[in-house]
Amino acid sequence: MDNNQSSYIREDELIDDLQLNGLNLIQKREGFKFGIDAVLLSHFANVKRSFRVIDLCTGTGIVPFLIYGKYSPKEVFGLEIQEDMVEMAERSVHMNNLEEKLHFINHDLKDIKYLKSLERFDVVTVNPPYKLNNSGILNPLDKLAIARHEILCNLEDVIVASRTLLKDNGRLFIVHRPERLADIFGLMRKYKIEPKRVKMVHPKVGKAPNIVLVEGQRDGGAYLKWDEPLYVYDENGKYTSEIDKIYGRI
Amino acid sequence: MDNNQSSYIREDELIDDLQLNGLNLIQKREGFKFGIDAVLLSHFANVKRSFRVIDLCTGTGIVPFLIYGKYSPKEVFGLEIQEDMVEMAERSVHMNNLEEKLHFINHDLKDIKYLKSLERFDVVTVNPPYKLNNSGILNPLDKLAIARHEILCNLEDVIVASRTLLKDNGRLFIVHRPERLADIFGLMRKYKIEPKRVKMVHPKVGKAPNIVLVEGQRDGGAYLKWDEPLYVYDENGKYTSEIDKIYGRI
Repeated sequence: MDNNQSSYIREDELIDDLQLNGLNLIQKREGFKFGIDAVLLSHFANVKRSFRVIDLCTGTGIVPFLIYGKYSPKEVFGLEIQEDMVEMAERSVHMNNLEEKLHFINHDLKDIKYLKSLERFDVVTVNPPYKLNNSGILNPLDKLAIARHEILCNLEDVIVASRTLLKDNGRLFIVHRPERLADIFGLMRKYKIEPKRVKMVHPKVGKAPNIVLVEGQRDGGAYLKWDEPLYVYDENGKYTSEIDKIYGRI
Repeated sequence: MDNNQSSYIREDELIDDLQLNGLNLIQKREGFKFGIDAVLLSHFANVKRSFRVIDLCTGTGIVPFLIYGKYSPKEVFGLEIQEDMVEMAERSVHMNNLEEKLHFINHDLKDIKYLKSLERFDVVTVNPPYKLNNSGILNPLDKLAIARHEILCNLEDVIVASRTLLKDNGRLFIVHRPERLADIFGLMRKYKIEPKRVKMVHPKVGKAPNIVLVEGQRDGGAYLKWDEPLYVYDENGKYTSEIDKIYGRI
């Protein structure tokens, strides 16, 4: 890390080199770090250079940075309810000199009136909390819990927000758990975002899928395409060549 | 074929040895023959010896015969709208001396009043017509078209019939195409048959799935389990050992 970069971070933070067009992201040393979900979601999304994109539940901004790095769209927004995460994302923006391209908003996605005040988007991406908030033992101030459990928003809130933010025929890309696929399809159809494409991610060949990627289209016609599945590890426990390619390592 | 068996069939028919407890099924030489869907559905179903089972869209009865041969349940019924298929299925019953175990009914599954007159079942199986009836060029008297396209019944009719026929907490097992999975989940939930388990069938490793098996439970609680996927062919184009096992060849 050079001195210029170190001026952007605090003691409990580090700078993660995204190995993508020189982009760097500020993350906490402890606490929520981005994982494979964000990388797969960014790869799964189809984004053109003319597009305006918004990422919901964006956390410290990994998906907007990856989307920008991969597709160079016109603008990418990130919406996040936790103020300190947005503050970190904004420091990452300044550190990368991307003030004209990346914009972070500290707001609750359940505030539909506010969402309606924004210009509509071509693409919405989201890596929402994927666990049902039904354990009863969660600390509502725990940032990890907020990222993983449906405490501050649930899947229906995310779909309603997507419907509100998308242009006609705009596309939603969501990463979630296969156990919730009936909920995802049901809520998308309830709010007229038609499921158009599914990609299942398996830890390895022959194992049940543990990640699902779904593309929906606002007011789209009914036809659901299944992509080829993705396997994360090979029989030797190493990343498959597909994963290496997605991570940009080959 | 011995003389005794040949007395059961007509010139345009043949007897298919199911290689399962000595069971034989009458089929047309030309026309609709059972395929891998029926074999996979029978294998996917969970049937106990105490169960009463009904198979919808049963055709010439392959699924009831396979279910009976694999699980020896109390009774298996088959419901089919095409009279000549039911007549063939009944000759298969007599040929196998299974009059007390297998029963075929020539009726329209859309006749809910009739379905309500039957005693409820522990399990419903169905391999429905899977293509949308939207081509407009189909001959409605074509038996192959009736078996494959939603001409005489559609997916909603099948789910409504299943809801009507199942006991409380009874299980529906359906084989269909992955392209229709959003429809399957949506209609199951509409009629309170909760999707509980999914198994995807891929032609081979790395290819998109082309068959889906879904288990639903009447008034079941929401939790969707994904089974390990099934691959039909190996890299040399031969059946995998899993398929050989399902077909009883190893």
